[in-house]
Amino acid sequence: MPAFIQMGSEKHFSSLHTTLCATGGGAYKFEQDFRTMGDLQLCKLDELDCLIKGVLYIDSVGFNGRSECYYFENPTDAERCQKLPFNLENPYPLLLVNIGSGVSILAVYSKENYKRVTGTSLGGGTFFGLCCLLTGCSTFEEALEMASHGDSTKVDKLVRDIYGGDYERFGLPGWAVASSFGNMMSKEKRESVSKEDLAKATLITITNNIGSIARMCALNENINRVVFIGNFLRINTISMRLLAYALDYWSKGQLKALFLEHEVKLLSVLSRVKRKSLWRLWKQPPGVRSCRCYTLCSRFPVLCCYSHSYCSAQRRATKNVCIVPVVNIRIVYYQARLACELSFKTIDSRGDSVQLCFPM
Amino acid sequence: MPAFIQMGSEKHFSSLHTTLCATGGGAYKFEQDFRTMGDLQLCKLDELDCLIKGVLYIDSVGFNGRSECYYFENPTDAERCQKLPFNLENPYPLLLVNIGSGVSILAVYSKENYKRVTGTSLGGGTFFGLCCLLTGCSTFEEALEMASHGDSTKVDKLVRDIYGGDYERFGLPGWAVASSFGNMMSKEKRESVSKEDLAKATLITITNNIGSIARMCALNENINRVVFIGNFLRINTISMRLLAYALDYWSKGQLKALFLEHEVKLLSVLSRVKRKSLWRLWKQPPGVRSCRCYTLCSRFPVLCCYSHSYCSAQRRATKNVCIVPVVNIRIVYYQARLACELSFKTIDSRGDSVQLCFPM
Repeated sequence: MPAFIQMGSEKHFSSLHTTLCATGGGAYKFEQDFRTMGDLQLCKLDELDCLIKGVLYIDSVGFNGRSECYYFENPTDAERCQKLPFNLENPYPLLLVNIGSGVSILAVYSKENYKRVTGTSLGGGTFFGLCCLLTGCSTFEEALEMASHGDSTKVDKLVRDIYGGDYERFGLPGWAVASSFGNMMSKEKRESVSKEDLAKATLITITNNIGSIARMCALNENINRVVFIGNFLRINTISMRLLAYALDYWSKGQLKALFLEHEVKLLSVLSRVKRKSLWRLWKQPPGVRSCRCYTLCSRFPVLCCYSHSYCSAQRRATKNVCIVPVVNIRIVYYQARLACELSFKTIDSRGDSVQLCFPM
Repeated sequence: MPAFIQMGSEKHFSSLHTTLCATGGGAYKFEQDFRTMGDLQLCKLDELDCLIKGVLYIDSVGFNGRSECYYFENPTDAERCQKLPFNLENPYPLLLVNIGSGVSILAVYSKENYKRVTGTSLGGGTFFGLCCLLTGCSTFEEALEMASHGDSTKVDKLVRDIYGGDYERFGLPGWAVASSFGNMMSKEKRESVSKEDLAKATLITITNNIGSIARMCALNENINRVVFIGNFLRINTISMRLLAYALDYWSKGQLKALFLEHEVKLLSVLSRVKRKSLWRLWKQPPGVRSCRCYTLCSRFPVLCCYSHSYCSAQRRATKNVCIVPVVNIRIVYYQARLACELSFKTIDSRGDSVQLCFPM
């Protein structure tokens, strides 16, 4: 983060007269540093407000004519599994499960009326942190890649390992996990599992736990559409399919797991700009088309550019394209390495290309 | 388990004309083996039925004149923390959280009217399995001992690590865990934590997750007394206090975490015997006082002895003390090593002492 602030200072972000929008915990934690070191005022936006506005906005504008929201049909059947569009035109009520390093679950009854129902600290950070410890991997991608080749049933104790089959009286099928990592109590079994098996078990454990808590919330709130979002699901088809299957199975078809094509935090910040302007920008981003498209098509809410006229609340008339660093500080911070690899480029107010150096 | 059946065969359990009561998954999984190898018929009792009857029974008879049920006052304050008796005379409704290798949560409305509300596969098996993998420990006791010397805040990412303080808008205090194991995404932080820290974080993660799910269930079912039982809590004061604190804190004092002095599965099986007889037995166990007391005072539901007259459904008149193997097969199996160390003795029908060899 200091490197990011340093860059802001060197590039004279403060001279651009634009608003530096920030969300996430970092917006609070680093606000003072931004002010003193970078001469930058942050426009702090609440993370969960942004999330909800982002979801509603992103669905309303669609994605290159396609639906933003989708679900899985036959999620566990590799051959029959289909990703199908879901019409979220009438979105309320909605359960929103945001899986970052931790998890927040929100019940949304209208644009302004929502509550944080609960959360769990077992989220993406738990998956990745445990995988690092158990397998020695060093990136989220590596952890997921390992998991995709593992067999969690060697690590977990299933209902059938205890009952020899189903526990019929309480409707627990033999294949259900009775105790996550339960087989690892045995030295012999510990010696027979691979790193891939451990990564898979970690992924299944965290995903099932989130699915189960989300299901309970949905039942309590009497909501049957559950939208899962957040960085944990980035390139993570295993978890998405598992959530889709688990919600359908355990609710006997009453609940539907939904997903979005894009990371919404970025857009949620953008959605503070007038919708019409943003819509035009989306369609016709003058001079920064590739940049905008890239941002929108990736799941990284890194810096993005748009015309200053769309940024200012006063809609000042200027055609210059300038840097408007819309930052989810926390995510930038964690995903810095990935962002660096992308060599993400933005365009400054003088039309020059600026390569951003993200902090490690 | 084969060794156990073998022992039953060699000791001619089948000639004793007693009932071999069994509960847990093993009662189903190994039933055929018991019949063919040991010539033993199992009287299978449902695990959750046993649990509930056991809890109700154990509280009704008390424990050497003391209350069976207790709670913690000031659970997180080492100096002011007190274990106080709780009167469970009018027990309904009750939420029963059974933490074995996995977790089952039951809402109990009367002796006959209960339902399994939900469960989680993240239980005692997950704690112990993960601890074995992360720390190289080999017993549950060792894992707990390590945890008691660790600092989980080095491993977990707290709300204050993200926000710099509280996340006030949603009432999340800075000390709350935002992402379990979240700090372990960083190589530097991985290198700075000890095995004790990892054991503590594992314990906190599993315990908090169970507490959080239990709290949701209690709210949904509109029940304010939550009894936590099961082997995970054996000698595990850290988790009991944490559950007590978490339930109180997050429910703003509306929910109370309760605990029992004894492991109830054993007694729940015993409670099938007429209460009056068992009560007399408890007070005056002829010839097997020390044995009975030992069983009751430990949390191990291993074999126990009582007079055949109390065992038989027909109440046959015999004053011989005989072996009545009341077995939670699963627990015997897992906790065999501990049981061996105890050199638990029972008395057979001829009054001889028999040392049981538990399977490894």
